[in-house]
Amino acid sequence: MATGKVTLLSAGPGELDLLTIRAARLLATADVVLLDDLVNPEILTLAPQAHVIRVGKRGGCKSTPQAFIQRLTLRYARAGRHVVRVKGGDALLFGRAGEELTELRRAQIPFEIVNGISSGFAAAAGLGISLTHRDHCQGVTFITAHLRDHSEPNWAALAATGTTLAIYMGMTRIDSICAALLESLPAGTPAAVVQSAGTSDERRVLATLATLAVTAREAGLGSPAVILVGNAIGEAVVSGEQTRGPHQPDASSTVSEHGRRYA
Amino acid sequence: MATGKVTLLSAGPGELDLLTIRAARLLATADVVLLDDLVNPEILTLAPQAHVIRVGKRGGCKSTPQAFIQRLTLRYARAGRHVVRVKGGDALLFGRAGEELTELRRAQIPFEIVNGISSGFAAAAGLGISLTHRDHCQGVTFITAHLRDHSEPNWAALAATGTTLAIYMGMTRIDSICAALLESLPAGTPAAVVQSAGTSDERRVLATLATLAVTAREAGLGSPAVILVGNAIGEAVVSGEQTRGPHQPDASSTVSEHGRRYA
Repeated sequence: MATGKVTLLSAGPGELDLLTIRAARLLATADVVLLDDLVNPEILTLAPQAHVIRVGKRGGCKSTPQAFIQRLTLRYARAGRHVVRVKGGDALLFGRAGEELTELRRAQIPFEIVNGISSGFAAAAGLGISLTHRDHCQGVTFITAHLRDHSEPNWAALAATGTTLAIYMGMTRIDSICAALLESLPAGTPAAVVQSAGTSDERRVLATLATLAVTAREAGLGSPAVILVGNAIGEAVVSGEQTRGPHQPDASSTVSEHGRRYA
Repeated sequence: MATGKVTLLSAGPGELDLLTIRAARLLATADVVLLDDLVNPEILTLAPQAHVIRVGKRGGCKSTPQAFIQRLTLRYARAGRHVVRVKGGDALLFGRAGEELTELRRAQIPFEIVNGISSGFAAAAGLGISLTHRDHCQGVTFITAHLRDHSEPNWAALAATGTTLAIYMGMTRIDSICAALLESLPAGTPAAVVQSAGTSDERRVLATLATLAVTAREAGLGSPAVILVGNAIGEAVVSGEQTRGPHQPDASSTVSEHGRRYA
């Protein structure tokens, strides 16, 4: 029997119309879908004939061991099936795609990767700002606060780059992250938390590095969320932009529900 | 007359099926499209009834002044039109979206942002690797080498972050960029150049930080391209992955033409 193939497919942040056209087309041809926990399950409507296996890996909670996910992927591909491995955001940013790709190479299974929108980009869209406004910075760093060996990122070096910081998986440690960054950055550095960016449940707060942890806690924000730090974020603070979708200049609350967008 | 609206729309790296579904839908409703130079012009087939204005800003060459682009956008929006401002990649990463958004806020024009795939992500997909393989790093930094004041990014700090570096607009200065990074990173650090990532003309070379500039020059690579540096890039070097689309374990050349992908 001919070997099948694997598509590593990025589901984007949540809303289905933020999938790429290519992703939607490939889902329609899937024999087997391996679906991560944080992916909007409505995506399965695009793969109506696929056998679906949910392989959640939500940090800390019950999860499917990585080795088991990889064994399943190889088993179906070797049986000639088109396996679509679906990960949230862009599959190539966090989420252990690297290990799964290494396995596919070792096993000599043909694969394709389809990019998607990572939540840090969706968060900036929700705030109505560029991640790299050139009045403020020359780049952006996407970093996970959830390190394999429980060590810390080099916050001093990250601050010294002058890039906007987009910190993933940091909400359980937001106090210590902000405290660490305050050793290198001014207390008034603009900062934000965007929870469930790019989904119908998106919520966000704008603050400063000194006040962000308290502000986010008072607003009841938690995981999954992106923490954004840097002067480029101040473009949102200054204008008081809050609504998702069409940005209205009169918005004024500091936490918003999902707003309108063009039909 | 009612004020119109502006959609800041990300065109992705080039191939049309890498647009989001939302982007394709919004293009169909555009009255006016303002199109950047580096965007695949085939995108206009998705906006058949729109008035199209090309507003190239290719670095260094003839270009439409930023102020003129912004005046045009405001004029059409105030005349009640739906203006779709199309930028390559993700509009919120480089490309001066920040300044255009500031203008829209000042002018109190409602706007919406639609994310897209930035070329750094497409480059990683072409190489068949994660940007953040957790054996190697905790994040990725997107940085432009083309600074407004002709200063240099803080290469030492960028290297100290331990993140993968995705350097945009760096091909004209690839020698000095690699030399600067070699002051902080080992000569054998894996590195790559991906030209026209995510387009039908994609080409790439894999090398080390010490050999990248020569390797890219010998292969004839130039702008537009992304320079990738970091141990995570070594996953591609080790396996010799070269073809775009379905990755074949027997690929061995160091520069490839656009490969096959699933129909």
